Amino acid sequence: MTDFGLRDHYVAAMKGAVLGRCPIARLIDITHYIPPQDVLAGTFVLERAVASFPAGTIHVAVVDPGVGTPRPLLLVEANHQHILCPDNGLITWTWRRYTCRARLLSWRPARASATFHGRDILAPAAAMLAAGEPPDTLAGEGVGPRLFDLHLADPHSGRGQIIHIDHFGNCTTNLPAHGLAGNVRVRDHDLGPIRHTYGDVTPGQPLALIGSSDLLEIAVRDGSAERVLGLAVGDEVRVE
Amino acid sequence: MTDFGLRDHYVAAMKGAVLGRCPIARLIDITHYIPPQDVLAGTFVLERAVASFPAGTIHVAVVDPGVGTPRPLLLVEANHQHILCPDNGLITWTWRRYTCRARLLSWRPARASATFHGRDILAPAAAMLAAGEPPDTLAGEGVGPRLFDLHLADPHSGRGQIIHIDHFGNCTTNLPAHGLAGNVRVRDHDLGPIRHTYGDVTPGQPLALIGSSDLLEIAVRDGSAERVLGLAVGDEVRVE
Amino acid sequence: MTDFGLRDHYVAAMKGAVLGRCPIARLIDITHYIPPQDVLAGTFVLERAVASFPAGTIHVAVVDPGVGTPRPLLLVEANHQHILCPDNGLITWTWRRYTCRARLLSWRPARASATFHGRDILAPAAAMLAAGEPPDTLAGEGVGPRLFDLHLADPHSGRGQIIHIDHFGNCTTNLPAHGLAGNVRVRDHDLGPIRHTYGDVTPGQPLALIGSSDLLEIAVRDGSAERVLGLAVGDEVRVE
Repeated sequence: MTDFGLRDHYVAAMKGAVLGRCPIARLIDITHYIPPQDVLAGTFVLERAVASFPAGTIHVAVVDPGVGTPRPLLLVEANHQHILCPDNGLITWTWRRYTCRARLLSWRPARASATFHGRDILAPAAAMLAAGEPPDTLAGEGVGPRLFDLHLADPHSGRGQIIHIDHFGNCTTNLPAHGLAGNVRVRDHDLGPIRHTYGDVTPGQPLALIGSSDLLEIAVRDGSAERVLGLAVGDEVRVE
Repeated sequence: MTDFGLRDHYVAAMKGAVLGRCPIARLIDITHYIPPQDVLAGTFVLERAVASFPAGTIHVAVVDPGVGTPRPLLLVEANHQHILCPDNGLITWTWRRYTCRARLLSWRPARASATFHGRDILAPAAAMLAAGEPPDTLAGEGVGPRLFDLHLADPHSGRGQIIHIDHFGNCTTNLPAHGLAGNVRVRDHDLGPIRHTYGDVTPGQPLALIGSSDLLEIAVRDGSAERVLGLAVGDEVRVE
Repeated sequence: MTDFGLRDHYVAAMKGAVLGRCPIARLIDITHYIPPQDVLAGTFVLERAVASFPAGTIHVAVVDPGVGTPRPLLLVEANHQHILCPDNGLITWTWRRYTCRARLLSWRPARASATFHGRDILAPAAAMLAAGEPPDTLAGEGVGPRLFDLHLADPHSGRGQIIHIDHFGNCTTNLPAHGLAGNVRVRDHDLGPIRHTYGDVTPGQPLALIGSSDLLEIAVRDGSAERVLGLAVGDEVRVE
């Protein structure tokens, strides 16, 4: 997962770096369209990736405006997977939803560019793990990573906020499904009770439902809740 | 093949679901840029994928505005391949060009979200097929799928229509190559005889030729026929 | 690497053509977003791919406005890898940075479309190489390929030019790192000495540094040098 886009050679360069050290590694793209340097957007997508992949998966996550500054790199264990990423808050949402353990990534290559640690450090380190290198040879002491002030809401409080908007315009909140009931309100819109699925309303109508991430989502059937309801990340959502 | 785009984690979530059940499955993206909910655009791309891949390939095709309604899911056999998709017309163009057999996909997981059947039903079912599960354990009775009123034209009639426009602006018609001859007209444009290749006209000039899908195509050398000639899906094309 | 984009089925059709002949081939996308028919942009990305991948890699590069004209196809050896591409200048930058050998690709399939040589000739030829076919059975005589008038600058001259701009707006020059020192000027901007990394300047400030391709780059920390400084491919860069 990166913010590199797909127009340049950068993603391929990271894959080449993996294959050079571990030719049998399987390579799966999560997305390379995290908005440039938007660590906050990246933290939600990374958590969804960790939720979706089998035990043993190694994630390389690069949304790294601090490349070229002395910010540390991390090796994190979560959901029986490894995550390699800069220590800039990118791990936050995974940290909130899984029991995690973070260590400083201490491994460095003999020669690294100052501007492309994804290719020169993170991808080779991932390849070494994939090839069977024990994590202890790559990472040192346990650390408390940098985290955003961003938390799952208490469903009993009935108050949460929009934390992420996908490209369909569906708006995910930080309200977990479990124990959640009532009428949903966002801005001046009353969305009625929590629905089971899009088919419970007519096309074009807004609704609140439990999304595929087990969080409350605001959506519009066959449309964009972001656009139709004028929503943005940070908007308060109430369940009354 | 989906309409999910590449900005979110959805495509990766489907891949994770496959790999969880069949770690050795190979994963190839057809496209995730079918315009959102445009089942008609999807049907042509799906047929091209079926035409391009070897026997034994399993296609998962998700353009599914009806997710969360009781629309059925299909398991289709075509060109010695399997296709898993919603029963909403997406299979139409494959159905017109190959001898197909459709069955209802009866397999369901113990727990499925109401909004993401691609991840929760279609991808795992594809993984089970890839892992050697016989189709009979996943699918039930044969059915006649829902199909769009969309057909190959009779080349002897000399009348067809534009059915698909690609991102270069090349316009594919429903006129099959076999037996086709004459001057080609679309809107007010006389394109002359069917050419062999782009090099038969000068840069910027429009032409009609047999495209890589063995159908008549309207193109502009080094340009966009859609834009230069003002064409749209549905436009009539005559071969006189 | 192609200019096909990801909206249509074309990239997948090439992959299907490879897998039909070499089912165990690994398929890695470099990019499919070379601007349509922009062979010059493609030549830099192709070189970066050749720099990034391990020995034995087979590259298929299709930016080919001349498809359907009698332009030759090439099989090139560079950096212990093979490259299959049209003979239209696409190999230029690889040719400048590696010792290369080019031959005419003589292999042709029994039947090829006139418009999609990527699928019908280049992808199958790559699959044959991947499956162990010796290059000699696919390619004939050595040739001097068509090359753009585009060269690495002499660092001692201190004069080079911008040759490529990536999607972050970073501007790569043709000035090699080795032996380069002094103050950097581009248009009316004095960028000061060559820096080590982005962190050496404050956010929003322009800088010159040695990029990940070992060439001088013009960048803006957390911004776009292309936009902030108004730069374009071809602009002269001086190191004084």
